[in-house]
Amino acid sequence: MPPLKPNPPSPDLPLLTDVRAEALDCPPYVAGLSIEEIQEKYNLSGVIKLASNENPLGCSILVKRALCRKAASAFRYPQSGSPKLHKAIADHFRVDPAQVVCGNGSDELIDLLIRIRAVPGTHNIVAFKPCFALYEIQARFAGVEFRQAPLKADFTFDMPALLALTDENTRLAFITTPDNPSGHCPPVEEIIALAQALPPACLLVIDEAYMDFCDDVARHSLFPRLAEFPNAVILRTFSKAYGLAGMRLGYAFAPVPLADALRRVRLPFSINLLAEAAGIAALQDTAFYETTLRAVAEGRDLLSHAFKKMNFTVYPSKANFLLMRPPYTARRFAEDLLARGIIVRWLTSYAMPDFIRISIGNAEENDRLCRTVAEMLHAARA
Amino acid sequence: MPPLKPNPPSPDLPLLTDVRAEALDCPPYVAGLSIEEIQEKYNLSGVIKLASNENPLGCSILVKRALCRKAASAFRYPQSGSPKLHKAIADHFRVDPAQVVCGNGSDELIDLLIRIRAVPGTHNIVAFKPCFALYEIQARFAGVEFRQAPLKADFTFDMPALLALTDENTRLAFITTPDNPSGHCPPVEEIIALAQALPPACLLVIDEAYMDFCDDVARHSLFPRLAEFPNAVILRTFSKAYGLAGMRLGYAFAPVPLADALRRVRLPFSINLLAEAAGIAALQDTAFYETTLRAVAEGRDLLSHAFKKMNFTVYPSKANFLLMRPPYTARRFAEDLLARGIIVRWLTSYAMPDFIRISIGNAEENDRLCRTVAEMLHAARA
Repeated sequence: MPPLKPNPPSPDLPLLTDVRAEALDCPPYVAGLSIEEIQEKYNLSGVIKLASNENPLGCSILVKRALCRKAASAFRYPQSGSPKLHKAIADHFRVDPAQVVCGNGSDELIDLLIRIRAVPGTHNIVAFKPCFALYEIQARFAGVEFRQAPLKADFTFDMPALLALTDENTRLAFITTPDNPSGHCPPVEEIIALAQALPPACLLVIDEAYMDFCDDVARHSLFPRLAEFPNAVILRTFSKAYGLAGMRLGYAFAPVPLADALRRVRLPFSINLLAEAAGIAALQDTAFYETTLRAVAEGRDLLSHAFKKMNFTVYPSKANFLLMRPPYTARRFAEDLLARGIIVRWLTSYAMPDFIRISIGNAEENDRLCRTVAEMLHAARA
Repeated sequence: MPPLKPNPPSPDLPLLTDVRAEALDCPPYVAGLSIEEIQEKYNLSGVIKLASNENPLGCSILVKRALCRKAASAFRYPQSGSPKLHKAIADHFRVDPAQVVCGNGSDELIDLLIRIRAVPGTHNIVAFKPCFALYEIQARFAGVEFRQAPLKADFTFDMPALLALTDENTRLAFITTPDNPSGHCPPVEEIIALAQALPPACLLVIDEAYMDFCDDVARHSLFPRLAEFPNAVILRTFSKAYGLAGMRLGYAFAPVPLADALRRVRLPFSINLLAEAAGIAALQDTAFYETTLRAVAEGRDLLSHAFKKMNFTVYPSKANFLLMRPPYTARRFAEDLLARGIIVRWLTSYAMPDFIRISIGNAEENDRLCRTVAEMLHAARA
C-alpha cells in the first residue's frame, strides 16, 4: 500500500474537528503503567506488578489449552450473542440463561446500562465518591448528569447521603461491593435497605467485580436473593478471580426484561471468540478458582499483618487488594517501590493522594514486597 | 454459589422494565447461522460455510503461534489504548500513529463515530439502502435520524440521491466500498466527488472492510489521498483479508483531531489482549495476506464463470463474495444447498429476497459448491 501523500487539504473542505461537547468533556481514564513500560522507564528486569488487581496465580491451564486449541478458529465470526457462554454461566450459577448478559468487559455493560436507562439532559445517575472511574466517564459521554456522595472517612458507605442525591429522575445508582479502592464490603442488609429505599424508577447496579474474594458471600452479596429485587442488577467479571483480565469478559445477572434489552442493544459480536472459549474453560476449572481464593485470602492476611507492623494504616478488605496509608508520603513510597521494581497503585487518580492500593500477589511476590518495604523503612531510619 | 431462590419479588418494588424507546426500537441484527448450528439442525457433518465473508484460508500460522504464546498472559490487562497495535498499523501503512484508531471490530468505531458526531433528535445520518445493518441499528440506538437512498437497480451508487437526503444537520454519510452485499466498487473519482459535494458539517465514513480484495486499490480507495480530505474517515478491518473475524479488530484512518476524540471516548480496554497480539502478527505475515488475495481473486473468477454458465445472474465484485440471482427461487436455492451441507447467505435480511450472497471459499470448497449446484440443477431438470 503506498504511503499517505502529504498533500495539503483541499481548500474548499472544512476541517471537521467538531465533535459533541460530551465527547470532549469526557475525563480520560487513567490506567496503571504496564510491566514493560516500567522496565523500560527504570531500566529494570524482574518487575512485579501489584497495581491492577489481576489474578496472582495467572490463569487456569484449562484456559491456556482452550485458547491454543481455539486459535486456529480465529478467522471465524463468533456465534452472535455467544449463547454457549451464556448457557455455561447460567448453568454454573444455576440461574435462567435469560437473566445473563455478557459484555466486552463489565465496561461494556456499564455503558449499555447507562444508554438504555438514562435520557441525556433529563435523567441523572448517583454513585459514591470515589468510585470506579468508568461510571462517571460513561455517564458524561452519554450526556447524563452524574451525582456523587462522599464515602465516610473510613471508606464505608454513607447510604443516607447517596439517597439524598436521588430524585424522580434518578435512573441508575452504582455501588461497588467489595468496594474499590477500599475493599469495604457492607453486609447485604445495607444493600437490601438501599434497594428498598431508592426511588421507584431507579435501577440499583451492584458491581461485584471482587465479590469472589469475599469469604462469606451469602452475608454480603444480593445474588442469592436477586429474584426478590427486580430493580437490581449484579455485575460480575472474569477479570479477577477467573484470571482473564486480558480477555475482556464481564457478565450481568439482570431481571429478564432488562437482560433482553441489553442483549438487543449490544453490538452483535462484542464478545471475542477466544474470550468465549476462555470463559467457558475458566468456569470448568473450579480447582484453579478455589486455589486463587485461598492464595488471595492468605496473602491478604499476611500483607495486612506485615504492613500494620510496619506502621501502615491498613483498611479491612474483602477484595484481592489492600488500601493503605503509608507512614510517609504515599507518592514517595510508591516511587521508592517502583525504583525497586515493584508497581503498586498510588491513588491520586482516585483523588486520594495520601493512599496506596496494593494488589495481593502470589507468595513469592508478597514476600519480596514485605522484604523490600522493610529495607526501605530501615534505610530511611538510618 | 447457591442457586437463585425463586422467591416472589418484594411487592413494594416496581418491575423496572422501562428502557429508552431508542433501545426497544432497535431492529435486531440478523447474523448467519454457524456451522455447528447447521450441523445440528440438518444432522450433517462436513458442512462448509460460505456465508460470512470469512477468510477462505483461515488465519496465518504466525497468528496461531502468537495466540498460543500469549495465552499465558490472559490474566493481564491489556495496555490501555493498545499503543503497540496502533504503532504496528501506522508503520505498516506508513501513516502517523495519531491518525489510527482501533476498535473492538469496526462495529465499535461505527458506534463511536455516531455518538461523537451526532446529537440525538437534531442531527441525521445518510447511507444507501441496502447497507450494513449496523449503520442503522447504531444510529437508531443513539436516537439519531437515519436516512437512506436506494442503490440503483444494478446496485451501483446513486450519489445524487444520497446528496439529496443531506441538509445542514447531516453529520455522517456512510458508504461501503467494495459494497456489501453487491461487491460493487466505484472508481475513487466518485468518492472524491461525493466528499467534495457533501454539506460542510458532514463527515464521510468510507467503510473499506473489503478493499483488500480489490485488484486495483489505487484506483478505488481514497486511502492514498486521505490527507487531502479532512472530512473523510476510512474504516478497515482484520476480519476479512487478515483472517481474524473472531478476534474483533477494526481500525480507522482518521484526521488527527477526530482520531483523538475517538480514542478519548473509547472504553479503555476495548481491545482484547490476544486480539492485539493477533493483529500485530497478522500484519507481519505478508505472505499469508498475499496468498489470501490470490486465492480470493482466483476463486471469484472461477465461481463467477461457473455460475454464469449455470444461468445465474452474477454481479461484478471486487470483494471476497459474489452477489447472485439464481435461476429459481433464491430461498429454495439456499435451502437446497443447506440440506447438502453448504451455507450461503439468502439476502432476505437485506430486503433482497431474490438474491444470494456467496463468500469465496478455498479451492476445495469452491469445487464442491460448483459440483453440488450442478447436481441440484440437473436433478431439478430431470
